[in-house]
Amino acid sequence: MNVERVEQRRSFGGEQNKYNHYSEVLKCDMTFSIFLPSNKEQKELPLIWFLSGLTCTDDNFSQKSGFQSLAEKHQAAVIIPDTSPRGEDVANDEAFDLGQGASFYLNATVEPWAKHYQMYSYITQELSEIAATLVPNFSGKESIMGHSMGGYGALMIGMKNADRFKAISAFSPISSPSDVPWGIKAFTAYLGEDKTTWKEWDTAELVKIAGIPPILITQGTADGFYPEQLNEKPFLENAKQHNQAVEYNKVEGYDHSYFFISSFLEEHFAFHMQNLGSLE
Amino acid sequence: MNVERVEQRRSFGGEQNKYNHYSEVLKCDMTFSIFLPSNKEQKELPLIWFLSGLTCTDDNFSQKSGFQSLAEKHQAAVIIPDTSPRGEDVANDEAFDLGQGASFYLNATVEPWAKHYQMYSYITQELSEIAATLVPNFSGKESIMGHSMGGYGALMIGMKNADRFKAISAFSPISSPSDVPWGIKAFTAYLGEDKTTWKEWDTAELVKIAGIPPILITQGTADGFYPEQLNEKPFLENAKQHNQAVEYNKVEGYDHSYFFISSFLEEHFAFHMQNLGSLE
Repeated sequence: MNVERVEQRRSFGGEQNKYNHYSEVLKCDMTFSIFLPSNKEQKELPLIWFLSGLTCTDDNFSQKSGFQSLAEKHQAAVIIPDTSPRGEDVANDEAFDLGQGASFYLNATVEPWAKHYQMYSYITQELSEIAATLVPNFSGKESIMGHSMGGYGALMIGMKNADRFKAISAFSPISSPSDVPWGIKAFTAYLGEDKTTWKEWDTAELVKIAGIPPILITQGTADGFYPEQLNEKPFLENAKQHNQAVEYNKVEGYDHSYFFISSFLEEHFAFHMQNLGSLE
Repeated sequence: MNVERVEQRRSFGGEQNKYNHYSEVLKCDMTFSIFLPSNKEQKELPLIWFLSGLTCTDDNFSQKSGFQSLAEKHQAAVIIPDTSPRGEDVANDEAFDLGQGASFYLNATVEPWAKHYQMYSYITQELSEIAATLVPNFSGKESIMGHSMGGYGALMIGMKNADRFKAISAFSPISSPSDVPWGIKAFTAYLGEDKTTWKEWDTAELVKIAGIPPILITQGTADGFYPEQLNEKPFLENAKQHNQAVEYNKVEGYDHSYFFISSFLEEHFAFHMQNLGSLE
């Protein structure tokens, strides 16, 4: 693995770092960011994954959320992948909700997407191996959070890997992708028109599995994408029928932006740290 | 005054608002942002001004600093002006450190700049009058902070209006403008080559005035613009000779970015609130 650090910035006593590397899984160059807390007490550190939304890169969460103060307070490492494979050779679409910046974090099976769009394998395998080498005193405990498309990604990856992630949280996630325009468009393009192939990636289906991690979701009522794209009903109904530990909170007057995310990030971090067994 | 609210976003229980208006002083359309805390207890609110650095708009501080959690905690209103007059009719320069986005917050006396570049009057008069109408239960107490060019602006405006501002703070400010390339270039363009006209805008001179407000400055040692552009020596030497209450803190390993600003913002807010008489 040839991983090069291209930025190192001090933040709240810790380090906000950015790395470039060639991904064997995605067959292109990739960038990701990782925050390491000061860890002055040489503790074992948990790792929280953050998956961003449509059009984002690893920069949005690192520059706009203010998460570093919480990650330093709780002494957690945080890794932020990019939202898709990138590059001139990588398939793309003019629309903002398909192609580069819009991978939906799954493994595509239909060309032209399948060649590069293997974000699920990239995150759960290749980038996970890299992350483990970059977090000093890694406790091996992980959790995952995300926003919008990345909220879907966090739910999907977290539920498919229930033995690995101790908690899942999402801000305004696409929780029922087979029932909303963004999800239908992406699944049709990346997986094809046969909806039976969608089920293994459909969070409203995955939430039926026994033993998934506890889930916290926060949704603003003034979010312009709610309820059309962020319809929570199929997901929540299935969660209820299967007695899953899903807390879904609507917050009055908040929109889809980082002003919303940053306002509730402290609550999400507390939820993660509690389930990671690290809350003091 | 015709002031139009163009954005209203809920943030940490308060409101992050953006306004457009025509400035009579600057003779162009202007944008500014203001944060209003929730003020659930109907307290009298102080107003803190934040002046941004070269190339910035009102968005940089509102989107990247995370200040809203602190302004809500301390129940302070915060106003963020743009960094210069704007528009096709407004004089500009290809360089990032002159013209639009680079006003240095002074009143230019030399054309083509003098027609629009009257930011000092805009901030201390026109925008101040507008701000007073937008902050409910305004206590009348104000303080000012800024970053880089805006750190210069905060020092300059705060010291020239010592009876008005209760505290001044700056992150990596251009504190000795007559001695560094950025300041010399701007003063020469906006004020002309006669250096005697610079003195009334030179923070290293203004710091000699009796009765200026208490000042807090934080400077990162890994800041690429330090010490060439952010040379503090003339300013600090004059402050010392005149027994001014200037606290200048160097912080190891921090750069010039918002990762640096956000890391020390809590300390700056505490300093402001203490001097505004609002720290509980």
